[in-house]
Amino acid sequence: MAKEFSFSITSRLSGAHARTGVISTPHGKIETPAFIPVGTQATLKALTPEQLAAVGAQAVLANAYHLYLRPGSEIIDAAGGLNAFMNWKKPTFTDSGGFQVMSLGVGFKKVIDMNGTTDEKPLAKKDKLAWIDNDGVTFKSHLDGSRHRFNPEVSMRIQHELGADIIFSFDELTTLHHTYEYQVESLRERTHPWAVRSLEAHAKLTESRADKPYQALYGVIQGANYEDLRRESARFLGNMDFDGYGLGGALTKENIGEIVGWMADELPEDKPRHMLGISEPDDIFACIENGADTFDCVSPARVGRNGALYLPTGRVNVTNRKYREQFEPLMKECDCYTCQNYTAAYLHHLFRAGEMLASTLATIHNQRFIVRLVDDIRESIQDGTFYDFKNDFLKKYYKK
Amino acid sequence: MAKEFSFSITSRLSGAHARTGVISTPHGKIETPAFIPVGTQATLKALTPEQLAAVGAQAVLANAYHLYLRPGSEIIDAAGGLNAFMNWKKPTFTDSGGFQVMSLGVGFKKVIDMNGTTDEKPLAKKDKLAWIDNDGVTFKSHLDGSRHRFNPEVSMRIQHELGADIIFSFDELTTLHHTYEYQVESLRERTHPWAVRSLEAHAKLTESRADKPYQALYGVIQGANYEDLRRESARFLGNMDFDGYGLGGALTKENIGEIVGWMADELPEDKPRHMLGISEPDDIFACIENGADTFDCVSPARVGRNGALYLPTGRVNVTNRKYREQFEPLMKECDCYTCQNYTAAYLHHLFRAGEMLASTLATIHNQRFIVRLVDDIRESIQDGTFYDFKNDFLKKYYKK
Repeated sequence: MAKEFSFSITSRLSGAHARTGVISTPHGKIETPAFIPVGTQATLKALTPEQLAAVGAQAVLANAYHLYLRPGSEIIDAAGGLNAFMNWKKPTFTDSGGFQVMSLGVGFKKVIDMNGTTDEKPLAKKDKLAWIDNDGVTFKSHLDGSRHRFNPEVSMRIQHELGADIIFSFDELTTLHHTYEYQVESLRERTHPWAVRSLEAHAKLTESRADKPYQALYGVIQGANYEDLRRESARFLGNMDFDGYGLGGALTKENIGEIVGWMADELPEDKPRHMLGISEPDDIFACIENGADTFDCVSPARVGRNGALYLPTGRVNVTNRKYREQFEPLMKECDCYTCQNYTAAYLHHLFRAGEMLASTLATIHNQRFIVRLVDDIRESIQDGTFYDFKNDFLKKYYKK
Repeated sequence: MAKEFSFSITSRLSGAHARTGVISTPHGKIETPAFIPVGTQATLKALTPEQLAAVGAQAVLANAYHLYLRPGSEIIDAAGGLNAFMNWKKPTFTDSGGFQVMSLGVGFKKVIDMNGTTDEKPLAKKDKLAWIDNDGVTFKSHLDGSRHRFNPEVSMRIQHELGADIIFSFDELTTLHHTYEYQVESLRERTHPWAVRSLEAHAKLTESRADKPYQALYGVIQGANYEDLRRESARFLGNMDFDGYGLGGALTKENIGEIVGWMADELPEDKPRHMLGISEPDDIFACIENGADTFDCVSPARVGRNGALYLPTGRVNVTNRKYREQFEPLMKECDCYTCQNYTAAYLHHLFRAGEMLASTLATIHNQRFIVRLVDDIRESIQDGTFYDFKNDFLKKYYKK
């Protein structure tokens, strides 16, 4: 099948890497910069697809690791792919599974490497949940402890069965606690060779499944917070025939924009760049300014389900007693369904009563807040008002 | 304010008490017979009001006991009443709180009477959660154990603060395990005098809150499964100036239709009759045939949240492995959002993965199934095909 994927740049911010553009996929277009909500298990948790579309979401990202374990990628393939399975009509992304396999963030909150160390201390052998070698990773399921193996070929097969419009190469997740020597080894012995193997496996699968819509493959750049490694990784992958790039792994918040800028310096300008797992407003501004086009993150929905809602003046907790009798919307100027139809007092009641609708209404507000923020940033780049918008927003939000 | 409440009968089933009609309230009309979904805590749990309206629900019923404890009826009054608070545009009902106060069904699953006995055995004094006397009931909150007192005047005040279109008199809940002597005493010493006091308190509140929309008061008939008591109760309350009647309390499933018929024999024909807490298809047919107009019940939503879904051939559990690869709707001929947009395999996945959307999609299907069943019964009365429809439906559903 012909490559039904393209990226066109529609405007640029002078003197910076920031740009606006349009990504075209078999399931439609994404105007960038864009925030992409996460639907880990092929569902948006408290929202129907229609409710998520109504907040302005242009695409969703699902997790290969979770869907491989349950219901199984072969089930989703048989259902006609991720879009059909979950009734989502717009573009989809899946990640490679590498992050979850190695961090097992959901089940265990542990980061494990070849030496069996966590962020804090060496891990006892019996506690290890993943074993990394230069071919791939063996890991235990967080659901039932059963053993599985992912490598670039397996990740590509799973992601082809899931059938998302945009998929990612299999990479090794490192952390800021790893030594420089480990980062070098990880990049050169695993992440880069795995990117080569991902691209090869992807090419074969694209050919053998030629009846399916084209899936774009993004190469994932690593290198932690080291300038030489980030540039090396961006150059290495930038010279390969990926459709776009994932900017992954460990990043220091203090200079996240600078790190993105190093990669943008080296990457081909005409390919889209996706920031994995970022949604804090200051990070979003910094990353876009330095060349990031799309973002995904579970955070807006996750904190919303816990009652933390975004306001222009920062995040607040609606379970706070002061909202008990606030008989007006949480954020009067917000155009979301929640703020248009419910008071803060009602949200407060739903959270206090432990009601499911609390999660739905809070998720709608938070997703809308972040989607709209990135939409407004896009407009400010087109208008040439990016810096004013950024300064105004961040001053109010962080009260600095 | 003028009585913005009326009931007009539009057709009758010859030779039976069954009829179709229209109830008019300040928030709109209800075509009867109708099934009224329950929104206990001023929310429909997994559904937004728009999603519930889309299944065809014509009204919702909320619980005075729960809303009195949390957020407090004064909060809902200050918010502009139940409709405004929960963003529901159609008619609303509240129950009197009597059922919950005495059964404390949600928190404790115990039925308590003046003698401190449960369905199974006498209750130790320290375990008692409600103390009934001829004036009212003192009870402990299921939330924090704090003590509260309900009587007819308190229930009316709470229900006026909640502001539903249709409210119920305060009554005593008895069970089938109570003696005949206890049922007589309960009816004559409490339920009937409490109905008189409810009506008086309601009249005063209607006058003192004349700026609010008119609230219709239904008198609740008790008498368990005793014909003489049911007839006595229906005659006693039927002679009073209630806007309609609630058919409550303990009923034997074997002759539920007969019991409803006794009450319908005695009640004024021109006032609507509401069955409290009934939703099983065979019970619905029996009650409508014998003169019931509306029904409420938590069951369709509650069993749905546990994965039990209604089919024309009976209820099934979608978590069953046989649905794992059923890549078609659970019920092909169903017009609900769930069956129109999702496969049984997807529902199966959502339940197995413990996802919130499972509850939303299952609730939509089950509420639609029961709402549509009662709508179809209404049509069959109008068409004169009630008995054929009843026989066909029940034969398929119960496989008899």
